[in-house]
Amino acid sequence: MPPAHPFDDDKLREECGIFGVVGVTDAANFVALGLHALQHRGQEAGGIVSHSAATGFNSAHRFGYVRDHFTKQSLMESLPGPLAIGHVRYSTAGSKAAAIRDVQPFFGEFSMGGAAIAHNGNITNAIALRRELIERGSIFQSSSDSECIIHLMARSLQRDIPSRMEDALRRVEGAFSVVAMTRTKLIGVRDPLGVRPLVLGKVGDGWCLSSETCALDIIGADFVREIEPGEMVVITAEDGVESVRPFRPAKPRFCIFEHVYFSRPDSIIGGRSVYETRRQIGVELAREAPVEADLVCPVPDSGTPAAIGYAHESGIPYGMGIIRNQYMGRTFIEPTEQIRNMGVRLKLNVNRALIAGKRIVLVDDSVVRGTTSRKIKDMLLDAGAAEVHFRIASPPTAWPCFYGVDTPQREKLLAATMTEDEMRTHLGVDSLRFISLDGLYRAAGEASGRNDSCPQYCDACFSGEYPVEPADMIEKGFQMKAAE
Amino acid sequence: MPPAHPFDDDKLREECGIFGVVGVTDAANFVALGLHALQHRGQEAGGIVSHSAATGFNSAHRFGYVRDHFTKQSLMESLPGPLAIGHVRYSTAGSKAAAIRDVQPFFGEFSMGGAAIAHNGNITNAIALRRELIERGSIFQSSSDSECIIHLMARSLQRDIPSRMEDALRRVEGAFSVVAMTRTKLIGVRDPLGVRPLVLGKVGDGWCLSSETCALDIIGADFVREIEPGEMVVITAEDGVESVRPFRPAKPRFCIFEHVYFSRPDSIIGGRSVYETRRQIGVELAREAPVEADLVCPVPDSGTPAAIGYAHESGIPYGMGIIRNQYMGRTFIEPTEQIRNMGVRLKLNVNRALIAGKRIVLVDDSVVRGTTSRKIKDMLLDAGAAEVHFRIASPPTAWPCFYGVDTPQREKLLAATMTEDEMRTHLGVDSLRFISLDGLYRAAGEASGRNDSCPQYCDACFSGEYPVEPADMIEKGFQMKAAE
Amino acid sequence: MPPAHPFDDDKLREECGIFGVVGVTDAANFVALGLHALQHRGQEAGGIVSHSAATGFNSAHRFGYVRDHFTKQSLMESLPGPLAIGHVRYSTAGSKAAAIRDVQPFFGEFSMGGAAIAHNGNITNAIALRRELIERGSIFQSSSDSECIIHLMARSLQRDIPSRMEDALRRVEGAFSVVAMTRTKLIGVRDPLGVRPLVLGKVGDGWCLSSETCALDIIGADFVREIEPGEMVVITAEDGVESVRPFRPAKPRFCIFEHVYFSRPDSIIGGRSVYETRRQIGVELAREAPVEADLVCPVPDSGTPAAIGYAHESGIPYGMGIIRNQYMGRTFIEPTEQIRNMGVRLKLNVNRALIAGKRIVLVDDSVVRGTTSRKIKDMLLDAGAAEVHFRIASPPTAWPCFYGVDTPQREKLLAATMTEDEMRTHLGVDSLRFISLDGLYRAAGEASGRNDSCPQYCDACFSGEYPVEPADMIEKGFQMKAAE
Amino acid sequence: MPPAHPFDDDKLREECGIFGVVGVTDAANFVALGLHALQHRGQEAGGIVSHSAATGFNSAHRFGYVRDHFTKQSLMESLPGPLAIGHVRYSTAGSKAAAIRDVQPFFGEFSMGGAAIAHNGNITNAIALRRELIERGSIFQSSSDSECIIHLMARSLQRDIPSRMEDALRRVEGAFSVVAMTRTKLIGVRDPLGVRPLVLGKVGDGWCLSSETCALDIIGADFVREIEPGEMVVITAEDGVESVRPFRPAKPRFCIFEHVYFSRPDSIIGGRSVYETRRQIGVELAREAPVEADLVCPVPDSGTPAAIGYAHESGIPYGMGIIRNQYMGRTFIEPTEQIRNMGVRLKLNVNRALIAGKRIVLVDDSVVRGTTSRKIKDMLLDAGAAEVHFRIASPPTAWPCFYGVDTPQREKLLAATMTEDEMRTHLGVDSLRFISLDGLYRAAGEASGRNDSCPQYCDACFSGEYPVEPADMIEKGFQMKAAE
Repeated sequence: MPPAHPFDDDKLREECGIFGVVGVTDAANFVALGLHALQHRGQEAGGIVSHSAATGFNSAHRFGYVRDHFTKQSLMESLPGPLAIGHVRYSTAGSKAAAIRDVQPFFGEFSMGGAAIAHNGNITNAIALRRELIERGSIFQSSSDSECIIHLMARSLQRDIPSRMEDALRRVEGAFSVVAMTRTKLIGVRDPLGVRPLVLGKVGDGWCLSSETCALDIIGADFVREIEPGEMVVITAEDGVESVRPFRPAKPRFCIFEHVYFSRPDSIIGGRSVYETRRQIGVELAREAPVEADLVCPVPDSGTPAAIGYAHESGIPYGMGIIRNQYMGRTFIEPTEQIRNMGVRLKLNVNRALIAGKRIVLVDDSVVRGTTSRKIKDMLLDAGAAEVHFRIASPPTAWPCFYGVDTPQREKLLAATMTEDEMRTHLGVDSLRFISLDGLYRAAGEASGRNDSCPQYCDACFSGEYPVEPADMIEKGFQMKAAE
Repeated sequence: MPPAHPFDDDKLREECGIFGVVGVTDAANFVALGLHALQHRGQEAGGIVSHSAATGFNSAHRFGYVRDHFTKQSLMESLPGPLAIGHVRYSTAGSKAAAIRDVQPFFGEFSMGGAAIAHNGNITNAIALRRELIERGSIFQSSSDSECIIHLMARSLQRDIPSRMEDALRRVEGAFSVVAMTRTKLIGVRDPLGVRPLVLGKVGDGWCLSSETCALDIIGADFVREIEPGEMVVITAEDGVESVRPFRPAKPRFCIFEHVYFSRPDSIIGGRSVYETRRQIGVELAREAPVEADLVCPVPDSGTPAAIGYAHESGIPYGMGIIRNQYMGRTFIEPTEQIRNMGVRLKLNVNRALIAGKRIVLVDDSVVRGTTSRKIKDMLLDAGAAEVHFRIASPPTAWPCFYGVDTPQREKLLAATMTEDEMRTHLGVDSLRFISLDGLYRAAGEASGRNDSCPQYCDACFSGEYPVEPADMIEKGFQMKAAE
Repeated sequence: MPPAHPFDDDKLREECGIFGVVGVTDAANFVALGLHALQHRGQEAGGIVSHSAATGFNSAHRFGYVRDHFTKQSLMESLPGPLAIGHVRYSTAGSKAAAIRDVQPFFGEFSMGGAAIAHNGNITNAIALRRELIERGSIFQSSSDSECIIHLMARSLQRDIPSRMEDALRRVEGAFSVVAMTRTKLIGVRDPLGVRPLVLGKVGDGWCLSSETCALDIIGADFVREIEPGEMVVITAEDGVESVRPFRPAKPRFCIFEHVYFSRPDSIIGGRSVYETRRQIGVELAREAPVEADLVCPVPDSGTPAAIGYAHESGIPYGMGIIRNQYMGRTFIEPTEQIRNMGVRLKLNVNRALIAGKRIVLVDDSVVRGTTSRKIKDMLLDAGAAEVHFRIASPPTAWPCFYGVDTPQREKLLAATMTEDEMRTHLGVDSLRFISLDGLYRAAGEASGRNDSCPQYCDACFSGEYPVEPADMIEKGFQMKAAE
Repeated sequence: MPPAHPFDDDKLREECGIFGVVGVTDAANFVALGLHALQHRGQEAGGIVSHSAATGFNSAHRFGYVRDHFTKQSLMESLPGPLAIGHVRYSTAGSKAAAIRDVQPFFGEFSMGGAAIAHNGNITNAIALRRELIERGSIFQSSSDSECIIHLMARSLQRDIPSRMEDALRRVEGAFSVVAMTRTKLIGVRDPLGVRPLVLGKVGDGWCLSSETCALDIIGADFVREIEPGEMVVITAEDGVESVRPFRPAKPRFCIFEHVYFSRPDSIIGGRSVYETRRQIGVELAREAPVEADLVCPVPDSGTPAAIGYAHESGIPYGMGIIRNQYMGRTFIEPTEQIRNMGVRLKLNVNRALIAGKRIVLVDDSVVRGTTSRKIKDMLLDAGAAEVHFRIASPPTAWPCFYGVDTPQREKLLAATMTEDEMRTHLGVDSLRFISLDGLYRAAGEASGRNDSCPQYCDACFSGEYPVEPADMIEKGFQMKAAE
């Protein structure tokens, strides 16, 4: 059973992390470590496929944490060989209880040998593709987008698997990174706009692909470069990295929310430390939205770097006014007498002695539904805070993401239905300020802010400007922002 | 199976947390929440005993985290009633693979009804007591000290259980807090010197006892007071709290390491915030051991408050140079090619972009064996740190604790065999400084430092001055510090 | 983990049992009971698919006995609806460790709705079909023959599922019975020769299909008739049973080994009691191969009816000389000192007092490898038997079955490499006699024995005359018996 | 979870089987095999304790079948050493959900070393002893009678464990066999009357004790002799078997129901084959209660030997009119439409073709509540039986057993409240006859029947004459039969 997260519903959730290795002994062990380092990108389930000459393809898919399954000798010994890929995932928003067959990597047998594939992101025309494929006789086993790619590959007339994958990729639209493997090749793909991340590393004589650089660190791999938007790499131990361009060129639009929340602070994106960008958001925020106060206090752990930056820039002391329980987890049975905000208390507690009587600048990474924010504010006031000034390290999240992130329907997003002032009243704080979109771009290294005619990042969740048309969603009735 | 912690062997470990409630509906649910908040005091196993008029005593003992077992409806429904106590534990140092029968609370049936008991701490004459009881015909089922108390109670001639417990307590020596229950009474005891903590709370119409105040917060209980050293409280829903004094009066010697490491930073001890004491240790440390540097960086999470204090006092910026993996856990299979410091990498990663080229003040709470400290220093240097100055928020740990804390044998303690300078060389850092004992006392609120003729705390792990003679250990060959 | 059977390797194993119900409340509960009654046909794993209007298709596949999984309320409640099919299976001979995805029923989604299918038997051109389908872009998920049928259906141009199934069936060769379901229809198919069994029953207002009649009894269903060779029935609750003939007509060749061993003795095949046929085999055997002896003793339980018949016809007393342990199961760790024939002893023990000094007629159903037969003979001699006369209730098993029965490779079959006299010497018994093929046919109700020019049954395992060409096996190198 | 048996409530259940070995390598593996052979004596749970010089005492207790746990390498490797004892058990009648701590063997630590003990049977003054021990300060951990013995031993003043056990045994009353072990000695005890069985075997250089001889066969041990009533044997590998007599001599009264039902048919009791006794019961029954009929048919498997005897003596053909499902087990979810006699159908099915139109002599071992008997009769009539004549291989069971057998309260026993004729009407059979007590004694080898002034067996369940006063039960209100 996947763990339930007490207030996940108030965070956006990255749906996946991917990792692959070729050219090392017992590649699956490296993949297990890499997935452990990427666990923050998906906690519901994980899977690994490996290939060895002696045993062919082997796979294991499990619900739960990587550490709880892919640490067992017996399981890891069932995944031998020098080539392996793996995947960690969240369940998608709409899905019913997930089936283990939906856990990636997905495997398919072709006449020229098998292939396994895993992706992070979303194919925006998957429903249409699936409909077309079923009509032509394909039998689907899962609800995973990866299976679309496998079926498209199965129907390609190309004679080798990488070429079939190129064929398949030309039919799909969306924002996705892919790791795949044949019997001898590790393959990586990044979507034309490079919305989702993928990096290349060197480990010993072998190579690896990872969603983030933090997973290179855990296995002692050296960071080589990012896979470029629209690039497909085909890697063998013998011949190294070959680069292909299946897609038409496009201007990159990397997901700016990776900087704000998804990626780990110790990862490097676009040559820039995620931690440093977040700290700089705090600095920008202190400039844009200063306030007289006694203490800058983060909502741990995602608000911490921005709070450090805010404190440094403002000169207001930094302190841990909220303490996180390291053993957070499933939902407890609530005792008969109601405990106020029990869900939040399982994860967070106020450091009463520090808070009492103080004017608090509370820094969080984002506000999605606002449910948890209200509870934290309640806890601070209960503990005697004199004032609570809420500072948010991202602009108002007013639009759903259709590129592999689990967001509530638009009407559930606080910022989609309220003005900033209405939100302040709703949350009951003394002041509420979000960083501006320009400020966010500056913190991310764009000194002159957002280029509105041609934005440097995908910021659809803030701006409603979707760089790839969400075709399936429009078919389901989603209303795009009216052109201005 | 309890999780293995990659470098637990470089921390002291509190052996237990205890919690009890009376006078509420479904008391066991409160206990589960309380134990969850005390999970940092013992992660190996947990147990709850409850009593209801309809079903009598019921109990459940499980290996693993509270959240993984005591959140299940079916289990919690098997623990009905208005009165319950619970316990979380580490295994003791010397024990072989622990048996579930060693997991507390321990239960005994007397002719006047049953009683359950759980404790935090250590009975220093338990071996001698056990020997005596076996010779007189007692059959022991576990290796738990609590069972000694139960057998002593079984042989008391008193007619009610609290009186039998008083009889039993007069035979035991050591440092311990106890929660116990009869069919109608919740009982709490603190040892004569008050070495181990125990606090009283009020929840609705009922009462609760807890190792720390942070567990009162999670259930929304109000903090009433600390149980006093040497006090025994007998609590019923109807008559409230009755106080008894089974022991001879003595001068209190609370464990100072609870301030340094064991307790959660959001707990209040002796009217003082643990977080604030730790932050103040950092302030004292910055005064005692200043250094020119570019960044103050904690070893997360235990070094964080002291690092904040050090940064504030010294004016050197504070930053998260080391990032902790929230999903730490079991040991992974190491890939064939060796990964340097893999154990540490499972839990920590260096924030390379922040560290590179900087002179780092690295702040940790303590040094026990020094094994992890060396690995962290290696990782910092690998990431390009210019200098590493190690600052420790406690004095050198040179003596084992015999009062319920799992410490290595004396010869395994780095500070027992090396001078501070030898340690610096051994750890390979540019400078190494521990806070002084006086500085620690000042941070803990004793403005004039340690009263050496009559110390205000138990600091045996630093000073070698044991306020209670460790009789069993001396019999086993432990050499006390020579009187000076 | 499926149970290991100590001497399964000395028995042929039916690969599957199938069961389906339509038109009853909670059909899956009926299927669970039916599969329990068919457990002897497959002990490795079981699966059930059900359909309800509210929840669509639901499925559960489990390794192990039906009783261990499909008795749990939570699981059964996840399988609602008035229509369900199920399957129990052995693993096939050559397979590696079976995957749960190989456990039937197999499910496929078509544009006009889903269908689930399960079969008992073997498609003899499955490898060739699979190759063709993969080349045309199908992605296979399992190694099950049922998946071939699903993919053939997916590529049919017919507009409804039963018609697509007809299309698909016309492409497959072999010996198989099928149960399948759409959202509203229960479908049953028997191969053109009717090698594998399938019967129709009436339960309340609904209908059921089953491999054997014994599974009708357990749910209180009335036996209606056998599905005819080459017949396909499409059943709905409203319109009852519609019969279709997808195949060209052929002369029936029912599997005679169902009478000898596979079916349960309380089942009725072709209007004839399996028990009575087996008893009659014993009678024929006593006539064909009489011997002077003191006791007729079966190898329990499969030899029991023939032994009763032999005893009755010969006048020699019948007795339980070998006692079966009802709790047989997995393989125990062998103690260091070797125990002779430990595998057999886990399941059987000699009734020493009865055996000692007696001349024994030992009756078993068949000899496959002969390994167990030797061990049983050893145990009888150890217990003091004066003579052992071995009587086998089937002719020598000299040819592998390719119609859904797990047989060793031909060279492992004792009768393929030895004459009857060599077998006697090899087994070390005083005399050895098999029933003649004519005798077996007489016992099965064919008064004039086998019609050699046009045999009434499939007896390929005895005669080497295969009524359906085993195309895949011939491609793999199997040598058919030379035409005489 | 222990398996539920659909109609256990209509059989008496032996509560336990015991087994011990000394002087062999890896003794626990032998014990596992022995317990597997004794599984019919207790299916709820099993336990093994072993001792090795290197690791001391080790133990494992598990719910469920021996084959499901004590076949795993990892578990068995945790039970090393040349000396081990084990136990299989049913739960006792009155107990609530059993706790694992109630599973034997029971272990106790004494000042001169530990001892483990397991028993089969019942201590009839256990409640009184337990009360006395608790008053004197003993803490009980389980509800097992074995623990009484351990506590009595703990309070003995003897200097070695066997002598302490002698002291303890002199305080207990009842009918019990015991296996026990110290660090070097295997100990066996049989109660003064020898009500419960215990046999001695030789295996290689070592020795073993077992409830029945069938468990000697499985490990290839030679039967040496029965432990005598009132005898205690102390066995070491070096010095062999030493015999002690702790009890006052008494006339033996072996449990006659072991012959009727409890023991396995391949066991030898008192030099007599259990199978042969049961067959002879059938012969006696045919003489005492002849009937005109077409078929003698057993209720499998317990009625089979008597049915063979009845058929042989009467000349009526023997046949398997009822077929047993080998995969019986837990209770299935009953489908909404009621299935008549579903519980019975899970285990038994009528062989319709054999039964239809015939007059049946139905032979069963005993009638307890009569619930199952009625259902079987219904099934036979449904299948078209012309007449059903019920013949029972034991006298009417009219009294509960207090010597380690799980019997319903007296008022639930059919024979306690009805005459034979009333029972016939209640069961709805054409005739009903039980064997006479004299006939049973003759079948068991007592040529002149029962010696009423001094019966050769314990037959309290038939006669109401209890050879040991059931003191605890009398205190609880049980009414003994009035002296005549």
